[in-house]
Amino acid sequence: MDKWQALHRRFFYSPKTKLMLDWEGLGISDEFIAENESLLAKAFAGMDALESGAIANPDEGRMVGHYWLRAPELAPNGEISGEIADCLEAVTAFTKKVQEGEILSERGEKFKSVIVAGIGGSSLGPVFVYQALAARHAKLKLYFLDNTDPDGMDAVFEALEDEADTALTVVISKSGGTIETRNCMEEARAFYEAHGLSFAKHTVCISGRDSKLDKVAQSEGWLERFPMWDFVGGRTSVMAAVGLLPLALAGVDTDALLRGAADCDALTRCHDLTANPAAIMALGWYACSGGRGGETMVVLPYKNSLELFAKYLQQLIMESLGKEFDLDGNTVHQGLAVMGNKGSSDQHSYVQQLVAGPDNVFVTFVQVLRGRAGESITVGEESTSGDYLHAFMLGTKKALEDHGKRTMTLTIPEVNAYQIGQLIALFERAVGLYAQMVHINAYDQPAVEWGKKAAGSLIALKNSARAYLAANAGKAFTAEEVTAALGAAAEDVFRLLLTLDANDDAITMSAAQNLLDSSFSYNG
Amino acid sequence: MDKWQALHRRFFYSPKTKLMLDWEGLGISDEFIAENESLLAKAFAGMDALESGAIANPDEGRMVGHYWLRAPELAPNGEISGEIADCLEAVTAFTKKVQEGEILSERGEKFKSVIVAGIGGSSLGPVFVYQALAARHAKLKLYFLDNTDPDGMDAVFEALEDEADTALTVVISKSGGTIETRNCMEEARAFYEAHGLSFAKHTVCISGRDSKLDKVAQSEGWLERFPMWDFVGGRTSVMAAVGLLPLALAGVDTDALLRGAADCDALTRCHDLTANPAAIMALGWYACSGGRGGETMVVLPYKNSLELFAKYLQQLIMESLGKEFDLDGNTVHQGLAVMGNKGSSDQHSYVQQLVAGPDNVFVTFVQVLRGRAGESITVGEESTSGDYLHAFMLGTKKALEDHGKRTMTLTIPEVNAYQIGQLIALFERAVGLYAQMVHINAYDQPAVEWGKKAAGSLIALKNSARAYLAANAGKAFTAEEVTAALGAAAEDVFRLLLTLDANDDAITMSAAQNLLDSSFSYNG
Repeated sequence: MDKWQALHRRFFYSPKTKLMLDWEGLGISDEFIAENESLLAKAFAGMDALESGAIANPDEGRMVGHYWLRAPELAPNGEISGEIADCLEAVTAFTKKVQEGEILSERGEKFKSVIVAGIGGSSLGPVFVYQALAARHAKLKLYFLDNTDPDGMDAVFEALEDEADTALTVVISKSGGTIETRNCMEEARAFYEAHGLSFAKHTVCISGRDSKLDKVAQSEGWLERFPMWDFVGGRTSVMAAVGLLPLALAGVDTDALLRGAADCDALTRCHDLTANPAAIMALGWYACSGGRGGETMVVLPYKNSLELFAKYLQQLIMESLGKEFDLDGNTVHQGLAVMGNKGSSDQHSYVQQLVAGPDNVFVTFVQVLRGRAGESITVGEESTSGDYLHAFMLGTKKALEDHGKRTMTLTIPEVNAYQIGQLIALFERAVGLYAQMVHINAYDQPAVEWGKKAAGSLIALKNSARAYLAANAGKAFTAEEVTAALGAAAEDVFRLLLTLDANDDAITMSAAQNLLDSSFSYNG
Repeated sequence: MDKWQALHRRFFYSPKTKLMLDWEGLGISDEFIAENESLLAKAFAGMDALESGAIANPDEGRMVGHYWLRAPELAPNGEISGEIADCLEAVTAFTKKVQEGEILSERGEKFKSVIVAGIGGSSLGPVFVYQALAARHAKLKLYFLDNTDPDGMDAVFEALEDEADTALTVVISKSGGTIETRNCMEEARAFYEAHGLSFAKHTVCISGRDSKLDKVAQSEGWLERFPMWDFVGGRTSVMAAVGLLPLALAGVDTDALLRGAADCDALTRCHDLTANPAAIMALGWYACSGGRGGETMVVLPYKNSLELFAKYLQQLIMESLGKEFDLDGNTVHQGLAVMGNKGSSDQHSYVQQLVAGPDNVFVTFVQVLRGRAGESITVGEESTSGDYLHAFMLGTKKALEDHGKRTMTLTIPEVNAYQIGQLIALFERAVGLYAQMVHINAYDQPAVEWGKKAAGSLIALKNSARAYLAANAGKAFTAEEVTAALGAAAEDVFRLLLTLDANDDAITMSAAQNLLDSSFSYNG
């Protein structure tokens, strides 16, 4: 069979959503499909159960309901449907009031920008969609506080130095207890106060009802509070208030975003593999990975505005699929690594390794048919810049396939809210189906907690070490001596004292020949 | 041996450059070091030969001289030393003239911004260093045209819509024939001309002497021309004019950048493993990878301003190490994949998979001791935001090591030009040493050409297909019919016609039930 015939049997197109998926480059045989038919059937059944309200996240005893966000009528009960619909209405109403000047800043001005304080799922979705759709002509410009890096926060505060009053802040934490976000919130509070402004009069929150954060917002009388729910995970929350509120404020057509996702959901509920692009992708991942961890998927959008897509997908895919145990408790070390920036730029970077290097990688191309809004000049060979972009994509696809690497290609007509909604929903569904196929819980993230717990102990140890030095002010101690007094691990104490020396005016290091044996003292 | 004792034997610190490398987390035994002593000795010898002017890039018959850029006196002959010194002087002089208004725009204004047109090595270094050091307070603000995406270029042109005249353009292509950069150049030319401005009066080039680009610049009388040399590869060109010119214009202390690199080079020429941080890193990569391809290194800087470091390293490392053959022609499929953004944000993304997932990954932490320039507030638990940043890093390091993952930690006192110069030189040297250890050419990129060649054929095929439709204007043809007439592959013809339908007003698709069988016609 030649490639053209093969393509006829491995090409998906939806006239309704305009999505194309060219999966000829996956090299999947009819036999492979037949072999995995029952596995796919199980995956479809699992997703059906999930969507109808099963406890699909057993570790946390939760339903998994991000699909209901764009089709509240499909939620398993009226209470959930109502809450989603109410939230949508509240987001729309608040956005309208802010944009039309009905809600004004403390000093009576229209808000011009938004500080979005949130990390992980509370920022990766909003940042990606903002960059893709709104950054160039934003109604309200978004600034992100997505880390507990003081210098990084200063960059945002500096940019807003002359317009503190017209900056609205949105604090986002599903649990209401995310430390990084709490830190961003307190730094933002200090920023407003340094400008003689009230934090409460500039701030809204998005959080679980009666969470720690929600209670702060209540007691301080913030401008507004928006809900988050147990049945929506952080990494699938971009179509909850988490994403919708900042994006609507920035001017994104959130109705189209939701419609694109809903239409893609309708498409990908289908139990027929060749008519379901998410199932094709999940089967493709399974073919490339052998159903085991260890593969890397490069996601390569040929479009600058989609440059953050792979970064968004890193969380969606790796946090969902990177699991130590399967649902039966067997040790599996599952995962699917994701990397990528944009083509054709990346061809001049790591594509050398993709073509010539190790065989544990496959590529998902994302092609956008329309080059630009306006007319194009001819830059050479009777071609436009956009013609070259397509040619480079197709040429690299060919080079990869000639060297035995598998590819698939998603094609959309243009970058707009509807298509972005579709892409997000498509990958969410592929993750759900693949997780069913490899029998893991895609909706918990136990390993994230381990690092957090260790960090908590280290903060306490730093405080103890500092207190010990302060109680013995003027005297110098090595990390080993402090450790002997406190009974912790010397390497931890050393690493922490080093950070105090660099940042705490009261703590000074006197460097020894071997830095590890340096002395630290308190001179407050 | 406890961890504290182990740390004493696996901790590097340079009092001169302030670099620390904590490599206790690599779990390298004395036996492993002894076993690989002769391999390391060979690597040191290879790097010595490279630095003294051997043809270290045999495929292209070239010397490899990026180390001379920061120590011209070490170049193998006076001609090279002189050219490097002259270029440095030219960059400094031009920058001074632009910043002080001695060189003015066409309409007599001081230049305010710079459009940097370059891709791959001609943009990844400049973008990374600009974001790390200058973006917040840039003397001249940099905009990057690093792709042949028309819409992405429009984003830059829109931002400069009202200040076209005060935008200087720097066109960078070592070979002078990079298609994407040529396209960016032609689009920039059209941008100036649309504003009634002369492109030549706003533009300088950086390219090989008498390259195609250099000749255009000569014949059109551009403002200035800066050289590139065969002995500097694109991915190690950030300390040639490629990086130095835009960065100096933006206000980066390029002297400090070069000094940091030179000091790190001095440090990493040492043949004693434990006194050479680049050798430690190379041995660490070797320990993690077993000297084979297939591993992923996550580079995780805990500092927002270093967020693009991993993207920069993707090119430096993957294009250098991702090779099909070794120097003896054996098929090896070498490589080391690189990913990462910034901590602690990434802890809320893919770190779940790093801890719990497949065992083909190790982590290089980059810690910056100083949190911010000014004073910090206490945000909780007697701690600052910066204290938490350190605690999260150390906590995640612990969680990874507890789950059997290897780590190393680079620590620098702060983000400044000297330290960035050091980090770049450190990874360049580690790449050089590791390539010697696994016996590959780290300085060519043959696979990049394959995709380019295929793209060239596709551009020609698109033109033929369009010409065929135009010659039969008004008549509709399927891709298969066009193929029969032209004798190419139908799947390529279809994919190309699809892009014409979306962008070329003269070409229209009439969709069939199966999209692949649609008809295309010319109606010019």
